[in-house]
Amino acid sequence: MSASPQLLRNLHLATLSEPTGYAEIPGAALLIHEGRIAWLGRAVDMPAEVAGLRLADVEVVDGQGGWLTPGLIDCHTHLVFGGDRSHEFELRLNGASYEEIARAGGGIRSTMAATRQADEAALLASALVRLDGMLREGLTTVEIKSGYGLDFASERKMLRVARALASQRGVNVHTSYLAAHALPAEFQGRPDDYIDACIHWLHELAAEGLVDAVDAFCENIGFSPAQVERLFLAARALGLPVKLHAEQLSDQGGAALTARHGGLSADHLEWLDEAGVAAMAAAGTVATLLPLAYYCLRETRLPPIAALRAAGVAMAVSTDCNPGTAPCSSPLLALNMACTQFRLTPSEALAGMTRHAATALGRSDVGRLAVGLRADLALWRIARPAELCYWLGGEPLIARWHDGRQV
Amino acid sequence: MSASPQLLRNLHLATLSEPTGYAEIPGAALLIHEGRIAWLGRAVDMPAEVAGLRLADVEVVDGQGGWLTPGLIDCHTHLVFGGDRSHEFELRLNGASYEEIARAGGGIRSTMAATRQADEAALLASALVRLDGMLREGLTTVEIKSGYGLDFASERKMLRVARALASQRGVNVHTSYLAAHALPAEFQGRPDDYIDACIHWLHELAAEGLVDAVDAFCENIGFSPAQVERLFLAARALGLPVKLHAEQLSDQGGAALTARHGGLSADHLEWLDEAGVAAMAAAGTVATLLPLAYYCLRETRLPPIAALRAAGVAMAVSTDCNPGTAPCSSPLLALNMACTQFRLTPSEALAGMTRHAATALGRSDVGRLAVGLRADLALWRIARPAELCYWLGGEPLIARWHDGRQV
Ligand SMILES: [Zn+2]
Ligand SMILES: [Zn+2]
Repeated sequence: MSASPQLLRNLHLATLSEPTGYAEIPGAALLIHEGRIAWLGRAVDMPAEVAGLRLADVEVVDGQGGWLTPGLIDCHTHLVFGGDRSHEFELRLNGASYEEIARAGGGIRSTMAATRQADEAALLASALVRLDGMLREGLTTVEIKSGYGLDFASERKMLRVARALASQRGVNVHTSYLAAHALPAEFQGRPDDYIDACIHWLHELAAEGLVDAVDAFCENIGFSPAQVERLFLAARALGLPVKLHAEQLSDQGGAALTARHGGLSADHLEWLDEAGVAAMAAAGTVATLLPLAYYCLRETRLPPIAALRAAGVAMAVSTDCNPGTAPCSSPLLALNMACTQFRLTPSEALAGMTRHAATALGRSDVGRLAVGLRADLALWRIARPAELCYWLGGEPLIARWHDGRQV
Repeated sequence: MSASPQLLRNLHLATLSEPTGYAEIPGAALLIHEGRIAWLGRAVDMPAEVAGLRLADVEVVDGQGGWLTPGLIDCHTHLVFGGDRSHEFELRLNGASYEEIARAGGGIRSTMAATRQADEAALLASALVRLDGMLREGLTTVEIKSGYGLDFASERKMLRVARALASQRGVNVHTSYLAAHALPAEFQGRPDDYIDACIHWLHELAAEGLVDAVDAFCENIGFSPAQVERLFLAARALGLPVKLHAEQLSDQGGAALTARHGGLSADHLEWLDEAGVAAMAAAGTVATLLPLAYYCLRETRLPPIAALRAAGVAMAVSTDCNPGTAPCSSPLLALNMACTQFRLTPSEALAGMTRHAATALGRSDVGRLAVGLRADLALWRIARPAELCYWLGGEPLIARWHDGRQV
């Protein structure tokens, strides 16, 4: 059952409904009806009636003079995981080498072990803490990957927990199957056999309705383009869209491979070359930028922002929330880092967590403010939209709506 | 009137009571009595009675298995200011040069104008929003500088607002008089006359009890060491301690100057040389590190951490909360950046916001957990202290005590 209609007044809109800029409407009003945006515009232009609804009879919500934006969309997270890596963070700062940490069971293997060991209730509880941090910052849609289970039962467990999160909170969850994240010890020296297993598991998990997209880690220390392509072909045969961790540490041609398969997004992209940019532009594949990982790894090579911009590739911005390289539950921090580190403009960054993040998830019904779209909204105590990117810390959110319901 | 005694149980302590490390006490208890820490230790060692108080009769607070630390201390902030600089942040990212922004009235002058124009109530309201963000992250003591008024009435207004903040919330406020922050237009070309004015105003403001310490900005684009020294001599004559914005953009010998005057701290220090390190070590002057400013300015030259560590100079860590180069109200983000960018260990970072930050404010009654110290405490939902530095975002605080009272 949908909530009663609400008329939001005394606010400004950043609609993100145009290719560039905020597409602002100052002094605006917005009508929520049956979970959708039924009308929006300047308050002075408000009609008496919309679709048979007399606006004078509708409950009014005072926007407190703030700004309303689409609810934020985090299109690349590893939100579900067991344990954390604060111990290895500390070891490394105390001088331990990566090898010493790996020998001590650190790195992704420690998260894999903790994730395999945890039951669904424990994974759900720890993920909820992180998700709630994001919701306090206006999130309404989140993508969540598997990829720390690396066996059938544990990958399934992660995807089930991701689905369960959506039933616990007012948020859209998109799942990505990322079994091809790292090679588990059971398959040491047999990556092609592991890809076979990943494809086999994918069929079962897709049949269960647990998979919205298929992702992989294409890298020297991950999987080869040929291995990724086998997985992508299996995904496409099942009608599932693909996306890729591409060009983070080296240029593997992963973005172009993703574009060839009509992929939703290629993510990271610090080593993306001109050919990759052109392939993404031609295919409409979104470039998902992950400035938190860049920060945590103290990288110095920036993604080719100017080339992406010039080619008209849509850029999304995400937290990459994960225990190793971005233990972050703050979408707003990702916005600041996209500006401060990657030199995105504030309107590009905000579009990257609304309009373009929606595209990166294959959604056209969220991520903008427009009549007919779902009423996934965030209302902010700010005087101008750029403040969402400018401040570090603080809680600017006044209220959040998911599917037309204030949550 | 002090609050009733409380016995905190089912928790671990990071006491920060030793020169290095957390000085942990796992499985601990801590007794709060008359605003002070009356007893602490392993729960199994708890006596039946402390100072005539039968522990069996004392109210028990369940620590939920978390960690208790000293309340956080932010020893370098510009928390009180008018307006913000989100507009100029956006202009710059859209390609405007610093000169264009300065011509458009940007930079510190825009904050000065907005601060002069705002009344005390407006300054208090905006500062409270930022302060509340810090309190949600376990802060119990904050230093607040003037320095955006740059005339007598406006500097006085800022210091009065800083004092008022302490009456609005459970927090200790230390004020620093920073009239020598920038040269106001009225004194263009006459910096020595402005220093005379600063000294004149200082006498009046100190007599009003508004000044706890005297600070300045020693830099090519600020004030010369000779000008700063005149101000320092006036401060010392009034019995006020000094501190300095030193060696941020160039080596002015500011840290050594501060040390010569027995200064509490020299802050920023990216360009500090060996002689400066030695002078600080000899004088016991604290090195206050400001990783947010380093991040926001995309600096590449690190403060000489290894030399400071080797010389035994105490290192504090602060947010530098200010509208231009650190619009930040998150002490925990400063801890992460101190580790990620400056390579402090998590225990060094935490000591920098407790034990050593207290020293940087001339306080020996807070910043550690020890019998007789004020019960300024933070209780955290974490499994190990390093998590305070590891996570980005989230709200790990369970509860906060100021002067023995849960707030
Ligand atoms: Zn990722
Ligand atoms: Zn400062």
